[in-house]
Amino acid sequence: MKIDFTNIFSENIGEHGVNRNEIFKKVELIKSVKKRIIDKINDDFYPLTLPDEMLKEVYEINNYASYIREKFDNLVVIGMGGSILGNELLHYSVNGIYSNFVKPKKVYFIDNIDPETNLTLIQTLDLKKTFFNIITKSGSTSETLLNLLLLVDILKKEGLNPKEHFLFTTDPEKGLLRKLSNELEIKTYPIHPKVGGRYSVLSHVGLFSAAFEEINIEKLLLGAKERKEKFLNKEPIENSEMLFALTQYKFFKEKDVNINVIFSYSDGLEYLGKFYEQLLAESIGKKFSRDGKEIYAGITPVVARGPYHQHSTLQLFMEGPYDKLIIFVVPKKFRKDALIYNSLGYLELDFLTGKHYSELLLNEYIATKMALTQNGRPNVSIEIEKIDEENLGRLIYFMELEVLALGELLNINPIDQPSVEIGKRFTHALMGDKNYSEYLKTLEKLENVDKLILD
Amino acid sequence: MKIDFTNIFSENIGEHGVNRNEIFKKVELIKSVKKRIIDKINDDFYPLTLPDEMLKEVYEINNYASYIREKFDNLVVIGMGGSILGNELLHYSVNGIYSNFVKPKKVYFIDNIDPETNLTLIQTLDLKKTFFNIITKSGSTSETLLNLLLLVDILKKEGLNPKEHFLFTTDPEKGLLRKLSNELEIKTYPIHPKVGGRYSVLSHVGLFSAAFEEINIEKLLLGAKERKEKFLNKEPIENSEMLFALTQYKFFKEKDVNINVIFSYSDGLEYLGKFYEQLLAESIGKKFSRDGKEIYAGITPVVARGPYHQHSTLQLFMEGPYDKLIIFVVPKKFRKDALIYNSLGYLELDFLTGKHYSELLLNEYIATKMALTQNGRPNVSIEIEKIDEENLGRLIYFMELEVLALGELLNINPIDQPSVEIGKRFTHALMGDKNYSEYLKTLEKLENVDKLILD
Repeated sequence: MKIDFTNIFSENIGEHGVNRNEIFKKVELIKSVKKRIIDKINDDFYPLTLPDEMLKEVYEINNYASYIREKFDNLVVIGMGGSILGNELLHYSVNGIYSNFVKPKKVYFIDNIDPETNLTLIQTLDLKKTFFNIITKSGSTSETLLNLLLLVDILKKEGLNPKEHFLFTTDPEKGLLRKLSNELEIKTYPIHPKVGGRYSVLSHVGLFSAAFEEINIEKLLLGAKERKEKFLNKEPIENSEMLFALTQYKFFKEKDVNINVIFSYSDGLEYLGKFYEQLLAESIGKKFSRDGKEIYAGITPVVARGPYHQHSTLQLFMEGPYDKLIIFVVPKKFRKDALIYNSLGYLELDFLTGKHYSELLLNEYIATKMALTQNGRPNVSIEIEKIDEENLGRLIYFMELEVLALGELLNINPIDQPSVEIGKRFTHALMGDKNYSEYLKTLEKLENVDKLILD
Repeated sequence: MKIDFTNIFSENIGEHGVNRNEIFKKVELIKSVKKRIIDKINDDFYPLTLPDEMLKEVYEINNYASYIREKFDNLVVIGMGGSILGNELLHYSVNGIYSNFVKPKKVYFIDNIDPETNLTLIQTLDLKKTFFNIITKSGSTSETLLNLLLLVDILKKEGLNPKEHFLFTTDPEKGLLRKLSNELEIKTYPIHPKVGGRYSVLSHVGLFSAAFEEINIEKLLLGAKERKEKFLNKEPIENSEMLFALTQYKFFKEKDVNINVIFSYSDGLEYLGKFYEQLLAESIGKKFSRDGKEIYAGITPVVARGPYHQHSTLQLFMEGPYDKLIIFVVPKKFRKDALIYNSLGYLELDFLTGKHYSELLLNEYIATKMALTQNGRPNVSIEIEKIDEENLGRLIYFMELEVLALGELLNINPIDQPSVEIGKRFTHALMGDKNYSEYLKTLEKLENVDKLILD
């Protein structure tokens, strides 16, 4: 894994870059951030210990996954946000966008509650051969419970015993799903109370479905563990996570860069972008008070895929406001490739022929990076050798650690998400939940205004 | 279609809103924008005539699509950016995310050049029963030509005649694809020279694949035509397109709102978001000079899907910087639904039971909109009765027209994309194309700097 910071410096991109010396003057700040992270590692930042902790569980998870593989052809993972984004990331990046076309065992994701999507999927699956992993940390996520109720009903109608078709993953003690698991005797994996959704991919949350689809979860954890050890053993200013967080921080605070683009040159790694989207947005998007002033922090992540987005948003990245930091994520080798022949014989096609299919993609990455650099647009490149479990472990740990470091730099709590609660309460009120009826008045007030609706 | 502007006004969302009276003071500005659009309608803004023009072609397109349906089971659409985003939008929204699970005829999209993805797909298709629609306006898009070369080679190896498996869609006269089509006698649909990629979904570009998958393209065009007539016949200030563009303009110019979130409460409509992403980014992301000053215009679109993104980015939308305008797009009815029973018997689940599955989704939309409004976050809602061809025609025309109006408000050309050219030239140089070797020196200079690469 190589992280290239060259194109953030003003000496290379001009006035919209940052000063190289200023970055390296921050040694003390970065040292203190590292110290604060280490102080929290067994408490709020417990997810950073997961590579070690979960290595002890690999054998059991693989065993259970094998047992389920023998009995079932399909696995459906059901969860919202952090309870499923990591599973999707591992599936699409390691096994590919068309994994279900080629692998004997199929994995599907229900990450939303669109009835047209979910009913169509459920109606086409052979439920006798389908196993469901229901994941919710709190055990009370409305969308996940709705999907559970729907499934229980459908399974019963088919004469199937829900108990044999479910694995739950939830809090070790609390919540409705835990209660249900005890009463119905459904196998249930625990989520450590200090492991929040968006930091949970390397826990039972992400590992069971990965093991089911024969992703090597040991290698995944070892890749992550390697990053952990680098973090602990290297000089803080030489940790790419720390420097990356400092880069985002400086561009946000000093250059009004409120947008970070995760530009992956791989279809599967688009899901790493979606994983990072939640990680960055929920961790750093925070209101707080300082010296009696309200401050609204937050960097908006934008997920892009190359070269696809060169034909969609690149024009904006090149000529729009200087409000973006571009983060390339690129595998240097692809696991499938083809040699291209000029079977049509046109001179205009000579530049493509005798080359490998992947060369165009990789050269487009370099060309795009250079075009942005020439236009004074700051960019960082993360290159991995190829997409595999170890590199994904590294990337996941890199992203989690650097977002925690960014939280420390901004002096905010990167672990909570206080502001999504109010919408949940409004939803309960609208659904007729009497425990929340007090909110109906607020909703009425918000509705009862002078409207402007056009057709 | 109802467009609700209520929650952009300061009387409802406080200091981060705009003044209602100020909006309506802009009558003259909006009148002049309308006039300028109408003046260009038969020239640069020719795409606005497509509903009428293409209605004349419906019979032929449907006929040809039926003929191809009889001979083939699979259609693969191959294109980049505007040459495929509209096709994807129609497929996923009208026929659903799992369309290929239930429909007898399958449609696939090759919208990128990731070898792992594309080779896997091609290797799993029965090529004898597969038809390919290759789309490139210029006829020279490198990625599309690479995919064409790969396919010609594979088809030949299988003993199949490429001529019988291809439909081209390209410029009526110019470009390599047109030349090829003449020499190989491949059926080729024209793209009017004044129809750029991102404005081409209602041309042959989008309509053939839609007709193949039995989407009613006549209704689609009639929905769009209805918007066109509303635009021509109503008072400019009562046109929701004009008011929408004015809203984006005022928030961008006066409130530093550089991000617009397209928040669709439907899985399929996420692809409307991706379509709009290109439309807004490429059309409005422009550098220009005024009074001797360089100005960098551009609003960054962010694609979100509800309720999914409530568990990912909503925390940021609620508490982050006031840099966003949220645009909800919501169908009020779903074409599939289910009644939910409390088959588990827990009191905590009562709020979900006896209701339709879609009610939670729709209430979450209202709850989220109200929570954002209460937090002073500007938002506009676009509601349609349900997802169908007529409503999609309306939505597509709405979006195209309002982006053109926004271009007029900003005094920029919303039709071109000048800045993506340099990356293309760099790519040709890197691929060894001798016509572009002059760029190798520039690339060398950009590479030859003091690097900072960490592991």
